[in-house]
Amino acid sequence: MPLLKGKSNCITDVRGVKVGHVTLHNKINETDTICTGVTAILPHEGNLFVKKIRAASHVINGFGKTNGLIQMDELGLLESPIMLTNTFSVGNVMQGTLQYMLNQNDEIGDSTSSINLIVGECNDGFLNSMRIPAVKPEHAIQAIEQASTDPVEQGAVGAGKGMMCFGHKGGVGTASRMIKSDNLSYTVGCLVLSNFGKAQDAIFADLENRETDTPDGSIMMIIATDAPLYDRQLKRLAKRCAAGLGRTGSHIGNGSGDIAIAFSTANTYAHQSSQHTESIKTIRDDHPLMNGLFQAVIETTEEAVINSLRYAETTIGRLGRKVKKATLT
Amino acid sequence: MPLLKGKSNCITDVRGVKVGHVTLHNKINETDTICTGVTAILPHEGNLFVKKIRAASHVINGFGKTNGLIQMDELGLLESPIMLTNTFSVGNVMQGTLQYMLNQNDEIGDSTSSINLIVGECNDGFLNSMRIPAVKPEHAIQAIEQASTDPVEQGAVGAGKGMMCFGHKGGVGTASRMIKSDNLSYTVGCLVLSNFGKAQDAIFADLENRETDTPDGSIMMIIATDAPLYDRQLKRLAKRCAAGLGRTGSHIGNGSGDIAIAFSTANTYAHQSSQHTESIKTIRDDHPLMNGLFQAVIETTEEAVINSLRYAETTIGRLGRKVKKATLT
Amino acid sequence: MPLLKGKSNCITDVRGVKVGHVTLHNKINETDTICTGVTAILPHEGNLFVKKIRAASHVINGFGKTNGLIQMDELGLLESPIMLTNTFSVGNVMQGTLQYMLNQNDEIGDSTSSINLIVGECNDGFLNSMRIPAVKPEHAIQAIEQASTDPVEQGAVGAGKGMMCFGHKGGVGTASRMIKSDNLSYTVGCLVLSNFGKAQDAIFADLENRETDTPDGSIMMIIATDAPLYDRQLKRLAKRCAAGLGRTGSHIGNGSGDIAIAFSTANTYAHQSSQHTESIKTIRDDHPLMNGLFQAVIETTEEAVINSLRYAETTIGRLGRKVKKATLT
Amino acid sequence: MPLLKGKSNCITDVRGVKVGHVTLHNKINETDTICTGVTAILPHEGNLFVKKIRAASHVINGFGKTNGLIQMDELGLLESPIMLTNTFSVGNVMQGTLQYMLNQNDEIGDSTSSINLIVGECNDGFLNSMRIPAVKPEHAIQAIEQASTDPVEQGAVGAGKGMMCFGHKGGVGTASRMIKSDNLSYTVGCLVLSNFGKAQDAIFADLENRETDTPDGSIMMIIATDAPLYDRQLKRLAKRCAAGLGRTGSHIGNGSGDIAIAFSTANTYAHQSSQHTESIKTIRDDHPLMNGLFQAVIETTEEAVINSLRYAETTIGRLGRKVKKATLT
Repeated sequence: MPLLKGKSNCITDVRGVKVGHVTLHNKINETDTICTGVTAILPHEGNLFVKKIRAASHVINGFGKTNGLIQMDELGLLESPIMLTNTFSVGNVMQGTLQYMLNQNDEIGDSTSSINLIVGECNDGFLNSMRIPAVKPEHAIQAIEQASTDPVEQGAVGAGKGMMCFGHKGGVGTASRMIKSDNLSYTVGCLVLSNFGKAQDAIFADLENRETDTPDGSIMMIIATDAPLYDRQLKRLAKRCAAGLGRTGSHIGNGSGDIAIAFSTANTYAHQSSQHTESIKTIRDDHPLMNGLFQAVIETTEEAVINSLRYAETTIGRLGRKVKKATLT
Repeated sequence: MPLLKGKSNCITDVRGVKVGHVTLHNKINETDTICTGVTAILPHEGNLFVKKIRAASHVINGFGKTNGLIQMDELGLLESPIMLTNTFSVGNVMQGTLQYMLNQNDEIGDSTSSINLIVGECNDGFLNSMRIPAVKPEHAIQAIEQASTDPVEQGAVGAGKGMMCFGHKGGVGTASRMIKSDNLSYTVGCLVLSNFGKAQDAIFADLENRETDTPDGSIMMIIATDAPLYDRQLKRLAKRCAAGLGRTGSHIGNGSGDIAIAFSTANTYAHQSSQHTESIKTIRDDHPLMNGLFQAVIETTEEAVINSLRYAETTIGRLGRKVKKATLT
Repeated sequence: MPLLKGKSNCITDVRGVKVGHVTLHNKINETDTICTGVTAILPHEGNLFVKKIRAASHVINGFGKTNGLIQMDELGLLESPIMLTNTFSVGNVMQGTLQYMLNQNDEIGDSTSSINLIVGECNDGFLNSMRIPAVKPEHAIQAIEQASTDPVEQGAVGAGKGMMCFGHKGGVGTASRMIKSDNLSYTVGCLVLSNFGKAQDAIFADLENRETDTPDGSIMMIIATDAPLYDRQLKRLAKRCAAGLGRTGSHIGNGSGDIAIAFSTANTYAHQSSQHTESIKTIRDDHPLMNGLFQAVIETTEEAVINSLRYAETTIGRLGRKVKKATLT
Repeated sequence: MPLLKGKSNCITDVRGVKVGHVTLHNKINETDTICTGVTAILPHEGNLFVKKIRAASHVINGFGKTNGLIQMDELGLLESPIMLTNTFSVGNVMQGTLQYMLNQNDEIGDSTSSINLIVGECNDGFLNSMRIPAVKPEHAIQAIEQASTDPVEQGAVGAGKGMMCFGHKGGVGTASRMIKSDNLSYTVGCLVLSNFGKAQDAIFADLENRETDTPDGSIMMIIATDAPLYDRQLKRLAKRCAAGLGRTGSHIGNGSGDIAIAFSTANTYAHQSSQHTESIKTIRDDHPLMNGLFQAVIETTEEAVINSLRYAETTIGRLGRKVKKATLT
């Protein structure tokens, strides 16, 4: 039985989660077009470095350049926004996000430790003149500053501007589900940056065959929940993204960086504390709620991919290439 | 586009692969029934210790007790049959398989190293009185000795005798696909031991709801191929099983030991050699054949699960419990 | 600055931890001698299945056959004794340990889930006629029943009876350290089963060169602590064993199964609960106590290896082979 | 028995390996001083993208921000220089290295795939005003262009300019060993960026106690060899760095990003090929050469750390802080 959708069917249905986009689209000359952007996902509305949260990742296929997973997995903590952009802009988005966090926290790299940044990417080089470093550090700062808890703009927007999926226009998609048990209710939200697959592989629709098919590509999958989970459990959630991805028709191609990150907003971890211990509240792994959370991850991953096509618009990029909006029946 | 099926749509379509079953079914008294077995998968027809092959594993969900993956993944080698049985018989099947290999190789544990055994399992305790150690070491030896390259008997047979899947009778299932490119052709075969899921979660059929549903369970997925791959690549294949599993409707429940093993018969590795180096032939990761192999893993995993239901028969086990054959339209 | 040793410098300095040995030594004929055994480590004095504890593992080198790590790492829980034996007795020790746990818990495999067993091993085939299955399931049960919280018998005892280390007699060794901060005090204990290395590689002593050197072998390292840690943190402890091992002179040879398991007795997890959540108390990763725990793991691993030689006795095994006690100055 | 050192006891003893440094040191005002840099390690003298090599990594402790390991480990390939810098300059060094590789290869991100970059880091914030982004993309390019096969300048140079180790001046250190068997000879080289530990923890020397001790920090360890190995084997080499690190006295502190990367120059992999298969030459894991390689990794890691202190000079950084050269007897 499918689960109930959240209020806006968006990752921002998880209370406090904010999403912001900066979209770049301008034709430079006959061959080059900038068609790319940045998307920022903020797990809560407070200072992310001071009030960290539990997080974990799973690499389904590692042909990707996501930055920051090593430390996030070692400590089980997220202490910065999750940033998404194109493959060649990871460095600039890192520098911009760093600058934002340094401005907000005078002590980082001075009287306290450094900060770990998360930047994920997909390759939008079919539509975007990616060799031109159009994404600047300030675009990352803008995406963070513009982030809101409103329903998320989807499709050819932010980091999704130049992405394509199943041979059609893809990009940013999101979905959410509610999991109920007794008088408890938790929400799971997923946001994807979709950029993979051939038209004829799609399971969810009979897509027109496209000669622009590029089977390999990538997908970033970000899972948010308000259920009280810790890092080991969040890794279990992240691993379920592979099943949701499989349901769309993906073959998880060689050149596809298919990477999942999951975080819970329910347990915060203060950067500094006078206590030597802390207490983590978690749902028992054997409680039916956990299987509900797993199901929610699978359903939202599948639907977020479909929504990234549903809300995308036909887009013209470099070399005059046109990637069409999919017809979903 | 779906791939072509192999000649018999079985894991034994991969040349040299042998499968053998020993099935145990007898009612002991009003409460206890033995309803279980052993299945052996032999990657080739030679001496497996002397002529090792490349292999790797991926743990999708680790609520399972499969033995032997640590060494297989460290060395990238398989040197014994892959054995499947019920959860409480792993020890006895290990001892039996060990005895078989020791009888065949006088030098193991004497003048040469020890041997690594692979025993996977699912929990058939709903139908089988699993606390009674009915599977003896000699059953493992029998399963190995009876293994053949013939099309595989599927359903409620061997280790699959007591398993249930999507609330109906599951067990052993298999499928195969051919991948062609230019004048090349490789085969991928999958054999599963299916034991998971609720009826209402099935995607491939509209199954009758069963009150005997146990969402958690497990699935062992064994991938064989004659494509020349090495361990890193075989781990990539094993990881794709999660996508195939997702397509059946699995939510990869908390209590499900979902474990995939992949091996290639194309590169053998002599236990002893006068050479200090060896040469491994591999398909390039960026060749289209690799994406074909990935697709084949996903398709065969999905179909092998369905076949495990298709070929199973209604089975009565302990406490008079009856698990019905699924109606697949 | 080295840390203070615990009261008995044993893993049993961690309150509640029990260790039991069964030692087998008898000459069968001119060629064959049984020279092996079983060692059981019980993390607490209660019912281990009903009252589980947090645990994790790290595989330093995976040429080993330890059973049960997949599920322990997936759930972060230990629910049975940690058993040690020779390589070819893993199956029988599993069956014996299973029988012990089934006898103690009627519901396992009947009305509740199955149970995960942990059996580690080293290859004692130089001294022990390992092809003869002398270790029976009942020996595992005896080792568990004989376990006590007393100081641990070390050297050529239990699973250590036939092991050799740095070309001399090794086997079971243990050590402990106390970590203090403010008015807090925690204990770390390590127990090793040592079976690796050439005499000339030892750093801690100038050992006589032995022609019986076998550089490869294995070492099992079991870390116990009463500090409140959870599975992610326990994996961090287990990873530090590699540094302690390095200090002894080990090169972590190809054929060495070097495997570490760490558990904390401070957080218990009831097998069943009416609550859907639970609370885990943990030491903050950035508290100085954590670095103290890391140091303690390194120091106890190093000293436990040395103690396994210090307390071992010259032993004669199969083919009349004699492995001498090391002279430690 | 210790192994023989290479000709220059440097990572550049592995034929073709090049190292280049850019060092930045200037006092800005009373509080701020730039005291940092970039170090580039090039595995061979050709086009690194066109002629890739086999590589793998191991994260000993993941409190680090190294970029690029996900793809390197997925494909087992290195296709760019390994860059080292301070924590807050990873983004700029990525952008510079990307620019260098794009300039060299017109097809990247245009007619062919993207490129994976490796940037490792340690936190030099004690001496360096790290919040000031002094390292620019062009410094990365300079470090690459200045790289040579000459013996490596060590100590307070390049990325090591601001690093401290065991409470004294650390930074870049290197060492090499030769492994011989029959008429074969291979070389292993290690280069470290050392930035960890308290003075009193050092094992290799009786260091003066320093109140500037910061136990946490980080170490990057880069292993190069001309032995024919593939990625699985290179990961085994990388894992041995933990033992070498342990021998120096490191406790692998919580805040230490201890990350090892190993590559082999012996197997190259063309970015594009008309062949669908390739052949990898590898040393057998059970050949004594492999244990020699493991030993070499441990010895060179230990000595490279010591050399990073030996060749460092007393350095004055931000806030007038002085970190003294260690007295090694």
